[in-house]
Amino acid sequence: MLKIPDHQVAGHRAGDGKLGPLIDDSGRFCKPLQNDERGSREAAFYTSFSSNTKILDQIRRYFPLFHGTQLLEASDGSGLHPHLILEDLVSTHVHPSVMDIKIGSRTWYAQASEEYIKKCLKKDREGTSLKLGFRISGLQAYESEESGFWKPAKKVVSSYDVEDVRSSLKRFVSSNPLADAKPDGSFASVVYGGSDGILAQLLELKAWFEDQTIYHFNSCSVLVMYEKAGAETGMSRAEVKLIDFAHVTDDEGVIDHNFLGGLCSLIKFLSEILVNLGDYTIEGGLNGFRQAPFSFQNGPKKEIQ
Amino acid sequence: MLKIPDHQVAGHRAGDGKLGPLIDDSGRFCKPLQNDERGSREAAFYTSFSSNTKILDQIRRYFPLFHGTQLLEASDGSGLHPHLILEDLVSTHVHPSVMDIKIGSRTWYAQASEEYIKKCLKKDREGTSLKLGFRISGLQAYESEESGFWKPAKKVVSSYDVEDVRSSLKRFVSSNPLADAKPDGSFASVVYGGSDGILAQLLELKAWFEDQTIYHFNSCSVLVMYEKAGAETGMSRAEVKLIDFAHVTDDEGVIDHNFLGGLCSLIKFLSEILVNLGDYTIEGGLNGFRQAPFSFQNGPKKEIQ
Repeated sequence: MLKIPDHQVAGHRAGDGKLGPLIDDSGRFCKPLQNDERGSREAAFYTSFSSNTKILDQIRRYFPLFHGTQLLEASDGSGLHPHLILEDLVSTHVHPSVMDIKIGSRTWYAQASEEYIKKCLKKDREGTSLKLGFRISGLQAYESEESGFWKPAKKVVSSYDVEDVRSSLKRFVSSNPLADAKPDGSFASVVYGGSDGILAQLLELKAWFEDQTIYHFNSCSVLVMYEKAGAETGMSRAEVKLIDFAHVTDDEGVIDHNFLGGLCSLIKFLSEILVNLGDYTIEGGLNGFRQAPFSFQNGPKKEIQ
Repeated sequence: MLKIPDHQVAGHRAGDGKLGPLIDDSGRFCKPLQNDERGSREAAFYTSFSSNTKILDQIRRYFPLFHGTQLLEASDGSGLHPHLILEDLVSTHVHPSVMDIKIGSRTWYAQASEEYIKKCLKKDREGTSLKLGFRISGLQAYESEESGFWKPAKKVVSSYDVEDVRSSLKRFVSSNPLADAKPDGSFASVVYGGSDGILAQLLELKAWFEDQTIYHFNSCSVLVMYEKAGAETGMSRAEVKLIDFAHVTDDEGVIDHNFLGGLCSLIKFLSEILVNLGDYTIEGGLNGFRQAPFSFQNGPKKEIQ
């Protein structure tokens, strides 16, 4: 009844006798708790978050639903193992285009071990995290029944530089992601733009991060999803979700400036894709936005005229 | 004619045969160029910035005026030395209350030497930079003709923890900064609040940082200034300036997410001082702001009701 997820783009994978998440056919995503403090941290986060009455529904919708923990047969054949029972975010999708973006120029945090910090710092400097404030951890974009998905290998994605990230963000919302040709970016306006697109959702999260001092989301990812068939008819079902909370820490009444900075950088990258495609009006900012990303009067508008 | 500045709160100081900045009586601040790449970087920044036509006046006003470089007698007696000729930011003040806040959870950058990175990382972790996204480098707050200034020693300031920063930000805008008693925060609303106060200025800078991809302001400081006599009559002449550009680097079309994150954290701290003093209305956000810091509808307002 439990099986290996088809559309996982990053993180530990089940299969080949390894421990990884499993899904069932009722829309549940069963994530094995890691044996060290990462497992207990993630369980503690979901427990705290799901019972925190200060979190409004309009923010809560950006997080997977949590249904507690359960002992389940582990995918590595080691027997019963505690799993987080979460919402399978892609269960209602047919051909989900998915991107996992790890947010923050720093993926480590003061409370971690020196060894862990050293390892993370090295990765942050080698990848784009330090430069961009985020890095792509994995992605897939659906092209067609015949050609299937564009899903670059983990090794390829982890060696992305700034320009690779820029072009992948555009290729991800193109009708021809697998083509050697320049990506057309046809779905950018419907997926990234619009009043309920990815950018509008990220801006809502940004406003929350400017104020919330409850959690610091170290090494956490933003998952961006849409459905190509929907995008073609203008109904992309574009969604943002936050995932991976094994390194969430408490604050001292301080905002998560590391996550916020990276989120703003991602917002700027997506905005620029829309600007370059002309999906931008001088008067109204990015079409139909709840909050204009360019709130500075006259400044940035001049540059892109 | 050149003399040692009275109101410098951080950085290298002239005097005791050391190399440091000097001022003249016509409002010029003469900063000796450091002999290594820091000197050339800072001169290059001022030259680039002052001739950059994309920078609008409403942003330019947050930077010291630049009058070129000049060979002047160095303060350490070593003879002629090149100096940056800048605006003396406090020359029109009588008893300036000044705070130097180094912005960014990371004061190092990829292009620096490994030795420099290691040194900065250690300092960022020992001080509040990593936690807060900023640290106080130095400050003075004027109390009265008799008692003079509250000016904690460099050693004291550099060992500040998060709570020390919080209380210093309040003490800085109090009528009794030297008192052992709890600081009264009497000048918070006129200095930090209002339509042209410190917060409104920081929010204008924030909007610029959300968009600008020209400069990365590594290890740069925000200088906050006001005049007590003015604050008492409601005219504080509160001003924000950016200073110290020895580590500014070019971008790759990426926003300065490190500076932006720290700036947002500082904004949140100052907002909370106003909120706790009751200088906040549920309807209008912080009184008279050009842009509300709490732009997320209903969310944060609930928490502080």
